[in-house]
Amino acid sequence: MKVGFIGIGAMGAGVVRNLLAAGHEVAVWDRFPEPVAEAVAIGASAAASPFEAAQFDVVFSMLAHDDAIQSVLIDSGWLVQLKKPLIHVNLSTISVNYGKKLGELHDVAGIDYVGAPVFGRPDAALAGTLHLVVGGRAELLGKLDTLLTAISKKVWHVGEQPFQANLVKLAGNMMIACAIEAMAEATALGTSHGIDRNIMLDLYLDALFPCGVYRGYGDFIRRREYEPVGFKLPLGLKDVRLALEAGEASRVPLPLAGAVRDSLVMAMANGYEDKDWSSLAEMSYARAGIKREI
Amino acid sequence: MKVGFIGIGAMGAGVVRNLLAAGHEVAVWDRFPEPVAEAVAIGASAAASPFEAAQFDVVFSMLAHDDAIQSVLIDSGWLVQLKKPLIHVNLSTISVNYGKKLGELHDVAGIDYVGAPVFGRPDAALAGTLHLVVGGRAELLGKLDTLLTAISKKVWHVGEQPFQANLVKLAGNMMIACAIEAMAEATALGTSHGIDRNIMLDLYLDALFPCGVYRGYGDFIRRREYEPVGFKLPLGLKDVRLALEAGEASRVPLPLAGAVRDSLVMAMANGYEDKDWSSLAEMSYARAGIKREI
Amino acid sequence: MKVGFIGIGAMGAGVVRNLLAAGHEVAVWDRFPEPVAEAVAIGASAAASPFEAAQFDVVFSMLAHDDAIQSVLIDSGWLVQLKKPLIHVNLSTISVNYGKKLGELHDVAGIDYVGAPVFGRPDAALAGTLHLVVGGRAELLGKLDTLLTAISKKVWHVGEQPFQANLVKLAGNMMIACAIEAMAEATALGTSHGIDRNIMLDLYLDALFPCGVYRGYGDFIRRREYEPVGFKLPLGLKDVRLALEAGEASRVPLPLAGAVRDSLVMAMANGYEDKDWSSLAEMSYARAGIKREI
Amino acid sequence: MKVGFIGIGAMGAGVVRNLLAAGHEVAVWDRFPEPVAEAVAIGASAAASPFEAAQFDVVFSMLAHDDAIQSVLIDSGWLVQLKKPLIHVNLSTISVNYGKKLGELHDVAGIDYVGAPVFGRPDAALAGTLHLVVGGRAELLGKLDTLLTAISKKVWHVGEQPFQANLVKLAGNMMIACAIEAMAEATALGTSHGIDRNIMLDLYLDALFPCGVYRGYGDFIRRREYEPVGFKLPLGLKDVRLALEAGEASRVPLPLAGAVRDSLVMAMANGYEDKDWSSLAEMSYARAGIKREI
Repeated sequence: MKVGFIGIGAMGAGVVRNLLAAGHEVAVWDRFPEPVAEAVAIGASAAASPFEAAQFDVVFSMLAHDDAIQSVLIDSGWLVQLKKPLIHVNLSTISVNYGKKLGELHDVAGIDYVGAPVFGRPDAALAGTLHLVVGGRAELLGKLDTLLTAISKKVWHVGEQPFQANLVKLAGNMMIACAIEAMAEATALGTSHGIDRNIMLDLYLDALFPCGVYRGYGDFIRRREYEPVGFKLPLGLKDVRLALEAGEASRVPLPLAGAVRDSLVMAMANGYEDKDWSSLAEMSYARAGIKREI
Repeated sequence: MKVGFIGIGAMGAGVVRNLLAAGHEVAVWDRFPEPVAEAVAIGASAAASPFEAAQFDVVFSMLAHDDAIQSVLIDSGWLVQLKKPLIHVNLSTISVNYGKKLGELHDVAGIDYVGAPVFGRPDAALAGTLHLVVGGRAELLGKLDTLLTAISKKVWHVGEQPFQANLVKLAGNMMIACAIEAMAEATALGTSHGIDRNIMLDLYLDALFPCGVYRGYGDFIRRREYEPVGFKLPLGLKDVRLALEAGEASRVPLPLAGAVRDSLVMAMANGYEDKDWSSLAEMSYARAGIKREI
Repeated sequence: MKVGFIGIGAMGAGVVRNLLAAGHEVAVWDRFPEPVAEAVAIGASAAASPFEAAQFDVVFSMLAHDDAIQSVLIDSGWLVQLKKPLIHVNLSTISVNYGKKLGELHDVAGIDYVGAPVFGRPDAALAGTLHLVVGGRAELLGKLDTLLTAISKKVWHVGEQPFQANLVKLAGNMMIACAIEAMAEATALGTSHGIDRNIMLDLYLDALFPCGVYRGYGDFIRRREYEPVGFKLPLGLKDVRLALEAGEASRVPLPLAGAVRDSLVMAMANGYEDKDWSSLAEMSYARAGIKREI
Repeated sequence: MKVGFIGIGAMGAGVVRNLLAAGHEVAVWDRFPEPVAEAVAIGASAAASPFEAAQFDVVFSMLAHDDAIQSVLIDSGWLVQLKKPLIHVNLSTISVNYGKKLGELHDVAGIDYVGAPVFGRPDAALAGTLHLVVGGRAELLGKLDTLLTAISKKVWHVGEQPFQANLVKLAGNMMIACAIEAMAEATALGTSHGIDRNIMLDLYLDALFPCGVYRGYGDFIRRREYEPVGFKLPLGLKDVRLALEAGEASRVPLPLAGAVRDSLVMAMANGYEDKDWSSLAEMSYARAGIKREI
């Protein structure tokens, strides 16, 4: 199948590689030349513009946030000039509100639209082991089956509306943030009682939470070093805020998310802006007056 | 080895069975005759009193809470009349404060004392797959090795002080409560956006949190039925409160635990007192005005 | 002095009346004819458009929210077509972010701009007893002195930047929301211990908080009726959210505001959307399982 | 009237003076000789023991906390040896739980008991302008009328049960804590937007909250110095905790109180243990990364 791909960041690069590996042809565009060159080196073709990347039956986009999509795909006039039929699969993590707006704009433009944010890091994107959260009409998913299967471990169809996938992605990140904060509070409590946080984490991650999210972020907390960055603090704060906003719009109080938000904001204010978002854990230690060891 | 065992509840029954299965002789005492009779039926001997159960080198206790221990082992004069040397292994989940006090009382009485609360349900106690959280002097643990190995999957030595084990147990339950609340908030958010909570839980429990705690409690949330009870709501509230108290005593703010506490109290006030503590999830739905389906 | 006035709602009507009473000439515009006619009946002149209302040295605006201003004053091309010099005094309660943007747009357009939200209800607007929170350059305030004095009890100059006044207004409303929630939690606690909430409020409002905010909202809580509406629930939620957003932008965690936000969202979800925002108090009662008396 | 008075701290000294000034005879006891000597110097008589102070129709007690009362009045055997009839008026701030227990112990002993904690500082005790919160049977209050009137500005009868007065006192302190935290969050938000906190407080304390609690604690926040101490941080934390405990016992979630609790605990952990409890305000600044000016 021949497809376009707009936005070749750390995540997009892995996805493109898996599309190519599955035998698909991929025309890629990015605002920077290097990632395009790298994709071309492994078999992709270069599209001269986002518009040119949308000349096939399917176009993927994987951009950083609402504003990037608005600028590249909407304000540019891209969406309203596309040839039809076309399915646009948006792998970006965006707000629920903006997901709704995009859905409406695609309806007006007569372009099929699927919201498809992913769970997984760049290494999972490369390994083809992403979890794909998909919102869109079932008939569209049928047409996309070989493509989506090529880039993911599993495809989760959460609803007929594209924005529903965005909600599920944001709520998942909110849960991850809660898990990080819970590990932080528990180990702060232990430290204040003279207990080694490594022993606590060994125990909890074996007896109670033997799963990747706790292990991965538990590792940052063990080291109390929040590099190399997996997911940057401001992005984590943004996603928790977007979950709270979605809750406010649909009238769902989220007290745990609210408490975590405060830790994330506190971390922003106290020097962790460029660190992994698990650095919110340091706030539990700071609030408890627990100093950093040297 | 010959040991005593005081308190044969659902948990203790399983532990006794594993001690017997490993070839140890066990003299059991309980305030009710039935569990004693059941233990005798599989090879234990009956002790006429807590005092008689403490005539060997090691005595276990597994009672419901601080007050039960105070009544059976302290106010009764038990502790101060024991023959020495004796190691008392206390498997009960108790408060940090009371754990400290018990440590001091045993020191005064000249009795060796090990705090050893467990993670695991009655089925794990029976299967010998408990995780044992142990606080006590390393030399004592050496002497207890065959016993502790017989009743658990793994022994976690978290510190030299018995109360440290109590803290680790309470902090672990606090983390579990946070996990339940996080699932509740995420699925309330999804429901309000028209998304089936089962699909969300399928996804989160596979992609993010493939571990027993999330699966077990996720199952209650799927059904929105909180029976049969695994861990009763008032006990869950008690443990979260004890974690908050321990934090207050050692000056550790615990905002997430505080938020969960409120959901637990709200559940107590709204008819879930006799349900599993995962019924705190219903509070997320009630706050969001999401009615029960029929 | 001759001035224009855009937006004659319940608040604006009172302000216009005081301007007229102080001897100023006022050309008024509103999207609805009735309030304009009422203003004309007491001595104002009718402006045919927002543009015509801005033909003098000073123009006031008092619109409901960011979007109304954006639509009437910005998207319409109004701001960029104004004759100069002109001072625009914006009495509206708007977000900090939008206040910043308006400041920049006025700078570009060469129009002097003062942010001037008010504390006070329609009755205070009418009585001329508003508190005026002013952000803007001191020299501008000098020129506005007789006007601002005519419509307020006191003018508070909080900073040189117009958006600073918006921040102070939002933070004040956040404090009011906290006061309401505190009264709700205290009286829920009392009710659950068999104490009449009226006696508690009598005591607290005399011994501790003898001031208008507590008295006014305490009165709603006494009656557990949240009508007639002084400040509608969704507006209250909006202001608390805007305070939280401002805090997030400037990296200030606001745990109390976050907790109140959840009560406001819960009230939106549970049937109080058209009530006074003090109906958030009912959420304390609902969480505690305290039923409404008949 | 002739009465006894047990516990002559800063508060008790003022109360005794007003009893004497109103023409009553007062036999005083304290564990320290100095306050007794001072009371005798202005006309009181010295009682040799708490027992001797209870030889009249009425005995007041004003001790620091639950433990002090337990030690002086209960464990000592005082209560069970008293002559009857006797009314014990307990002016101490104690927990609801302990208030209930004291009520039961007095019933058993056949001694009439009135819970009567006060709102007001030592200067108000001296000036006779305390607010007296009274729980007890109406007939007892009739007998106490001249005494209670002599020591207070106003007597608030909140219920027939003595512990109800304790609850009302604790809930009031909880409200005060919320007011302090709200001022702290608002001024942290302002500071981060370049606004002088003094201007904000001037405005809020004039336009919104012109009452003593806000003014008094606002003054600490203006100076960001939390001395001289009015109410010490650990006592403030204790009262908020007791309110939360009372809420947990009667099943009332208290999210605002929970958030304030965390600020109080954080202040304990970060060096404010010996300061006024309004130093919790510094936690808002610390969380926002706002440094102390020099």
